[in-house]
Amino acid sequence: MLSQSVCGTSRIVGFRFSLYPMSDQFVDVIKGALGETNTSKVWLKTDDISTCIRGKAVHVFDVAKAVYLHAAKTGLHVVLNGSFSIGCPGDSDGDSYMSVDDECMNEAALSHIKIEAPTQFALYPMNDSRYMDLIAEAIEIAKEKETISGGIHYASRLDGDAHEVFSTLEQSFTATQEKVSHVTMTVNIAANSPSRKKV
Amino acid sequence: MLSQSVCGTSRIVGFRFSLYPMSDQFVDVIKGALGETNTSKVWLKTDDISTCIRGKAVHVFDVAKAVYLHAAKTGLHVVLNGSFSIGCPGDSDGDSYMSVDDECMNEAALSHIKIEAPTQFALYPMNDSRYMDLIAEAIEIAKEKETISGGIHYASRLDGDAHEVFSTLEQSFTATQEKVSHVTMTVNIAANSPSRKKV
Repeated sequence: MLSQSVCGTSRIVGFRFSLYPMSDQFVDVIKGALGETNTSKVWLKTDDISTCIRGKAVHVFDVAKAVYLHAAKTGLHVVLNGSFSIGCPGDSDGDSYMSVDDECMNEAALSHIKIEAPTQFALYPMNDSRYMDLIAEAIEIAKEKETISGGIHYASRLDGDAHEVFSTLEQSFTATQEKVSHVTMTVNIAANSPSRKKV
Repeated sequence: MLSQSVCGTSRIVGFRFSLYPMSDQFVDVIKGALGETNTSKVWLKTDDISTCIRGKAVHVFDVAKAVYLHAAKTGLHVVLNGSFSIGCPGDSDGDSYMSVDDECMNEAALSHIKIEAPTQFALYPMNDSRYMDLIAEAIEIAKEKETISGGIHYASRLDGDAHEVFSTLEQSFTATQEKVSHVTMTVNIAANSPSRKKV
């Protein structure tokens, strides 16, 4: 796991996300995906609009991917949309979830699931005049991982297997936050969209 | 329209958004909402993940609200989720859509629709050390408009009628971009969520 390299820092990572199943069964899909995910190593709170998880980067990304995969494996068109964040001034550090170990609770159960994860993401390094360069460096990571598939207005596009896409997102985020205190990254990760069907 | 005050600038505003109907009929709802909206005064491009509109602030916000309301009026649980942006370095200014007049093409047809629009939003003024103060100033706007209903991790919460909520978002965004060149604002605007039902 590439994310091991960033564990051991005390910086708490958050991910506020919504899971959108384009289905009449959306309540069951959302509750099912959250219920099937092991969230024991992150702080978690759900409201009527979104869910927020907080903890070590390794576990926040592990849980994010698990929620996505458990929903996507239904075969329904689902989207995971949210913002990762670290270093927000005023954010309360020292949460108890920062003292857990680095063993991922979901990775082993999910590694066999292969799903295409077309994604648009945007990186926002805050309060830093180098921010456009830092974004360019994150894009280089995606190029090396061969998940990048183009720039669009206000975002970059990733395509590939979900494991590779989440790995790209995690590496881009963690590499950037080593250089800038406050970083946000928006992600819009789709699965099973009928618009993707070859014609 | 409060947005009139920012027209006449030549700064192009963009909104990359996804409309998520939690319904088996999601294709019809998305196509219906886009089709019912008058988009003649914005540049528009849709891909398999999101839609991007670009133009004058007044028209970008007019179209954003129209897409939301046309979807929400179906009574289905729908969410409009996306990012407004202005001043991204490298963004091509001088688009032909910046020379249109300020008359809103959707407002008149939509003003009678009353829908509660619970919203979470986050403002990102880029490359500016005052950014936390600027965010606080935007929250003051929401307080004055009485749409603010609390801060949460990584976002602020708005509640109220959709027209008031969109007005708050537009005013927060436009006020901030008068002070900072590059501003992004993420919005997650729900409608008809079963989680909102009183128990």
